[in-house]
Amino acid sequence: MTVSLDDVRQAAERIAGRVRRTPVIEVAPGLTFKLELLQHTGSFKPRGAFNRLLSAKDSGELTGQGIVAASGGNHGLAAAYAARELGVPARIFVPETTPAAKLNKLRTLGADVVQVGSEYAEAYQAALAAQDESGALLVHAYDQPEVVAGQGTVGLELLEQAGMFDTVLVAVGGGGLIAGIATAIGDNAQIVGVEPALAPTMHRALEAGRPTDGPVGGVAADSLGARRLGDLAHTAVQSHHVQSILVEDDAIVAARKQLWHEHHLATEHGGAVAWAALASGAYKPAAGERVVVVVCGSNTDPGTLI
Amino acid sequence: MTVSLDDVRQAAERIAGRVRRTPVIEVAPGLTFKLELLQHTGSFKPRGAFNRLLSAKDSGELTGQGIVAASGGNHGLAAAYAARELGVPARIFVPETTPAAKLNKLRTLGADVVQVGSEYAEAYQAALAAQDESGALLVHAYDQPEVVAGQGTVGLELLEQAGMFDTVLVAVGGGGLIAGIATAIGDNAQIVGVEPALAPTMHRALEAGRPTDGPVGGVAADSLGARRLGDLAHTAVQSHHVQSILVEDDAIVAARKQLWHEHHLATEHGGAVAWAALASGAYKPAAGERVVVVVCGSNTDPGTLI
Repeated sequence: MTVSLDDVRQAAERIAGRVRRTPVIEVAPGLTFKLELLQHTGSFKPRGAFNRLLSAKDSGELTGQGIVAASGGNHGLAAAYAARELGVPARIFVPETTPAAKLNKLRTLGADVVQVGSEYAEAYQAALAAQDESGALLVHAYDQPEVVAGQGTVGLELLEQAGMFDTVLVAVGGGGLIAGIATAIGDNAQIVGVEPALAPTMHRALEAGRPTDGPVGGVAADSLGARRLGDLAHTAVQSHHVQSILVEDDAIVAARKQLWHEHHLATEHGGAVAWAALASGAYKPAAGERVVVVVCGSNTDPGTLI
Repeated sequence: MTVSLDDVRQAAERIAGRVRRTPVIEVAPGLTFKLELLQHTGSFKPRGAFNRLLSAKDSGELTGQGIVAASGGNHGLAAAYAARELGVPARIFVPETTPAAKLNKLRTLGADVVQVGSEYAEAYQAALAAQDESGALLVHAYDQPEVVAGQGTVGLELLEQAGMFDTVLVAVGGGGLIAGIATAIGDNAQIVGVEPALAPTMHRALEAGRPTDGPVGGVAADSLGARRLGDLAHTAVQSHHVQSILVEDDAIVAARKQLWHEHHLATEHGGAVAWAALASGAYKPAAGERVVVVVCGSNTDPGTLI
């Protein structure tokens, strides 16, 4: 199964008016940030969620049973937000360890929050079971074609907004965002996937030739903590020859503080991962290379920025 | 003395490449934010500072003695930043009450920080004396033509970026920003000045027919705490028929929290004042009125956002 440029273009039409067209800012000559942290709910995730829900609405799969999703983080917020905007109920399964602040955010969006098990995998199994039982629509965090196509609209916007550029740096967890962006941008630029060294799903998949489960850890695990790369992402990053860069936790922490102090952007650790590759020197652009960094998430305790 | 549209256009040419072209984002249909909080040093102030310094460089007024300025806040940071970029020394006079965090920021920018007196007026007198003695260039926080013209480049960018709009909401302290924007935008839109009810410099000047000293207080006093409107600002807001709106402190506090929670923007209280007018209902747009809100400052302790 693959996602095509046409799928991304259709997603852009479908979700227009539902998501924000997030701005870009040239922070230095040849260095542009795509400010996707300013999206509704603070991450790129509503793009995929809206495309999934609206596609299912068209096909009749979205019923009064609404949706189910598993996530205590950005995906859960986005799914709950999209469901509320479209007037359908959302049941969000989260691990019992999810902090009260995140539970409250989900509830503020009108979601029915179900705490189950000690980790994400158990919440996901519970969401699958609820889907079977109720006929609600499952919205996956990254490995569904409509979700990948929705995230790809970030790439279409970049082609319109950022002028000419050579390289796009994107953080990778399950791979929905990078798969969509690689599909949207195609041969127009080199896509570079940046991952925490402690959660290298794409790096591992490229080495093994297929997505494999692995340990998850480090400061960005709350947003980039998928155990394995999605199959759709694996296909996309292979066919678009996406480059892989790993960054250490201390580089992520430093990059996040720099985004606050020098760029006035409040990001979560995962939202600073792509910038960490440049800031730490893990990715060294060539002379004159024009680089775009996707700054993709702001769901953080702002008290930890300084 | 007045500032003309030509002055603003020349300022834009002069400071190009020195300041960031900050983006706009349409956060809802007909409602656009100008994200000037993403400017270097976290406020619009470098626009005026660079225009003042570069104009003085052209005229020979900027010498190896560098600059002096009085401010423990956004203006001081901007003046120190501009001086550093242009390779001249900066001496910044601040009240003895200035918090250590702000002193450190100024010193990180290479400024020679002089603590004097218990309030801004004493620091300003010390800056004037230092100018007299050393021949350094005084950079005023708002009431110099080059400063007003520089801040006006925010308005020129808006005309290019935001499509058609009817109204621009701008926070007012000493009035440099609103004077510049009103000059730049002219008859293309209605300009609305928003002030804390506890520091209403423009409101008072419009009532009295001239700028008058008054008490300064409230949550936004650290950035909008001028005692009186500048003379240049008074002339500009009169000739452009700028409208005046006051907002209470609780509206500013609520607007700032909303900017964080819903828009993922970390602002200081002064940076949330323009939005507070809309969010609180103090300013009620007509049906279909297209409004731009200038979000102008991010120098805050992010731990106080939630």
